[in-house]
Amino acid sequence: MKFKIIKSSSKNLSRIGQIETTHGIINTPAFIVGGTKATVKALTIDQIKNLNAQAILANTYHLMLQPGAKIIQHADGLANFMGYNGPTFTDSGGFQIFSLGLAYKQNLKDMTNSRNSTQKLQYSKGLINITDEGVEFKSHLDGSKYFMSPEKSMEIQHQIGADIHMAFDQLTTPLADQSIIEEACKRTHQWALRSLTKHQKLNQQHQKNQQPEQALYGIIQGGRIKDLRIKSAKIINQLDFDGFGIGGIFEPTEINQVLNWIIPRLTIDKPRHLLGMGAQPLDLFLGIENGIDTFDCVAPTRQARNGALYTSNGRINIKNQQFKTNYLPIDKNCYCYTCINHSQSYLHHLFKANELLAYTLASIHNEYFIVNLVDKIRLSILNESYQEFKKNFLINYYQESDFINKFI
Amino acid sequence: MKFKIIKSSSKNLSRIGQIETTHGIINTPAFIVGGTKATVKALTIDQIKNLNAQAILANTYHLMLQPGAKIIQHADGLANFMGYNGPTFTDSGGFQIFSLGLAYKQNLKDMTNSRNSTQKLQYSKGLINITDEGVEFKSHLDGSKYFMSPEKSMEIQHQIGADIHMAFDQLTTPLADQSIIEEACKRTHQWALRSLTKHQKLNQQHQKNQQPEQALYGIIQGGRIKDLRIKSAKIINQLDFDGFGIGGIFEPTEINQVLNWIIPRLTIDKPRHLLGMGAQPLDLFLGIENGIDTFDCVAPTRQARNGALYTSNGRINIKNQQFKTNYLPIDKNCYCYTCINHSQSYLHHLFKANELLAYTLASIHNEYFIVNLVDKIRLSILNESYQEFKKNFLINYYQESDFINKFI
Repeated sequence: MKFKIIKSSSKNLSRIGQIETTHGIINTPAFIVGGTKATVKALTIDQIKNLNAQAILANTYHLMLQPGAKIIQHADGLANFMGYNGPTFTDSGGFQIFSLGLAYKQNLKDMTNSRNSTQKLQYSKGLINITDEGVEFKSHLDGSKYFMSPEKSMEIQHQIGADIHMAFDQLTTPLADQSIIEEACKRTHQWALRSLTKHQKLNQQHQKNQQPEQALYGIIQGGRIKDLRIKSAKIINQLDFDGFGIGGIFEPTEINQVLNWIIPRLTIDKPRHLLGMGAQPLDLFLGIENGIDTFDCVAPTRQARNGALYTSNGRINIKNQQFKTNYLPIDKNCYCYTCINHSQSYLHHLFKANELLAYTLASIHNEYFIVNLVDKIRLSILNESYQEFKKNFLINYYQESDFINKFI
Repeated sequence: MKFKIIKSSSKNLSRIGQIETTHGIINTPAFIVGGTKATVKALTIDQIKNLNAQAILANTYHLMLQPGAKIIQHADGLANFMGYNGPTFTDSGGFQIFSLGLAYKQNLKDMTNSRNSTQKLQYSKGLINITDEGVEFKSHLDGSKYFMSPEKSMEIQHQIGADIHMAFDQLTTPLADQSIIEEACKRTHQWALRSLTKHQKLNQQHQKNQQPEQALYGIIQGGRIKDLRIKSAKIINQLDFDGFGIGGIFEPTEINQVLNWIIPRLTIDKPRHLLGMGAQPLDLFLGIENGIDTFDCVAPTRQARNGALYTSNGRINIKNQQFKTNYLPIDKNCYCYTCINHSQSYLHHLFKANELLAYTLASIHNEYFIVNLVDKIRLSILNESYQEFKKNFLINYYQESDFINKFI
């Protein structure tokens, strides 16, 4: 993997770059679409390409349970298994192990009812067995036991064979006691080194077999604690990773503060990925101006399946009665397949009738909206109009000016 | 609507033709894909076009209940509402009224459990109120009461605005007593005339408003009773319809016999549509060689959603364990989007993981398989190789030679 910076902003920490992988180039900043179980939910590969998505991130946890990493390895890796010829990422499995892989009955129900990731993570306490060696956890599908360690995560990720992998880390809820976050952070750093060592061995094997080498990002944790975040950034920065993943940020209001602690401690010549963020436009603006190169998030498709659609004037729920007789597209400024071909009235009908096409058309729109927004931000950095673009966009989108005034 | 015959076979009743509608030409014989609620389930308009489907048939019953015919009228008609610029059909609403619109609680459950349309129809007895004037029925969605008559069906179909409409008929199960079938048949003929009269009035209004006129097919019923079928064919043939719809055939084993009674009584210069048939290849061969021009059936997508996929060697269920590690396409002879891009292993995984993409990819394959089969049959009639093509195809597909020997 190669990374080059094409332009750095003089006004903030944002930069325009290119990540070159075996499967193609990612122009950064970029929003990486979520392909949890080796599929971007409800979308074909052609639809993903047509909405200009540059890369897909799949989840190691989900894929190791179903269909199993070996099935994907025998298909010559994730991209080939999906029928996709673009760049791919996998996460380490850590996030889902700590948030999903716990007790698969009652707790799954509680989790489903809890409203955000922060809450969800609290359920993990005491339900998985964490030692320095690794983590024992239960599959959320059938309750069967698994063991995961940094070495195991590397093995599985190499079997899955995405272009860019993530080191195995320990996640906590930011609401945990400081001592717990501190311990998790320390373990994350030990596991980072073990991940890297194992990864390098596996890459040597690839080299011998004349197969492409894979890239590995180190993960920076530390919750909302300044000292821990700075320490984590410094330690991970010293190791021979190909890039950085920043984990444990859950709310847009944390982004400025936490990235302010981390980014200045990182070498500028490696790409930085903000894990799991990008549910709303504000995440993307704040991430990029603080030096983030890539994002991933499943919220655009998840919200789409609930009928919650992005527009330039904020989010709407297309299931609301008012859209039944509106024959305009979802967003008059949007050029996605759905907005070019279909009306709000038709989308409303498809959702009310529980038609599968509703999920596809809504997902195309939401993914396009977010991918396209990052593309527009990239362009505004290139032509020095970022501040103006940001202000116009956010004022139109959020409307509640009190909240958004803090950020523009 | 115009219909012209390009070639008639010298060996059987099959013919190659063209139906010209306001929204484009249909080369016949053709399989019309089912777009029940103004959407071919799980498929975008682009996917429908790419699998070479030439036209879509939507259901008046479903659309009058949801979103309501006026919503579609205000969108300038069905094609526009769907974002589709090809030819469209609607049925009269009759079939669903007699099979679905009855009692929406217990009976819906019974119907769901019953295995085929023939059985389903038996549940209608006594649960709807049929008079010479029309039918009182209950919505299967919420139990609310509706009244449908030939005039009402024409009004609704003109609001929906497809290119080709169907006359309102009374359906019975072929297992009903002869007297019941006879009565239904008589009413169907009275309703045919009333449908036609109302349709012509509505077309005159279109003419005045310089809007395109719509076409109407008369429906031939009569169950499995020779005299009734012949009488029905003769009566409908004398009326000024644009084409014929043949209803009440449920099994491929009935096709030869029933069409043999009907087709010789019909003028050759109008198109003939076999309603609701095309679930399996045999339906299509037998229909075409007996003079059918178009088919419609929702079975290809319904079966697809259950994982039942057509191949040149018969139907498979992709959810079976054996496909987990098979990296070949579903059918080595198929050139659909799914077979070009994806393996059995990937499809198996998507079904096992309940991923929405499973339904889309499987539906693309099944619709393509059936549409493409009819295209191949058309070609074989053109180049005088029909018998050979038929024999090879059916032997490969059905394998159980005892059953298929009767038909080749």
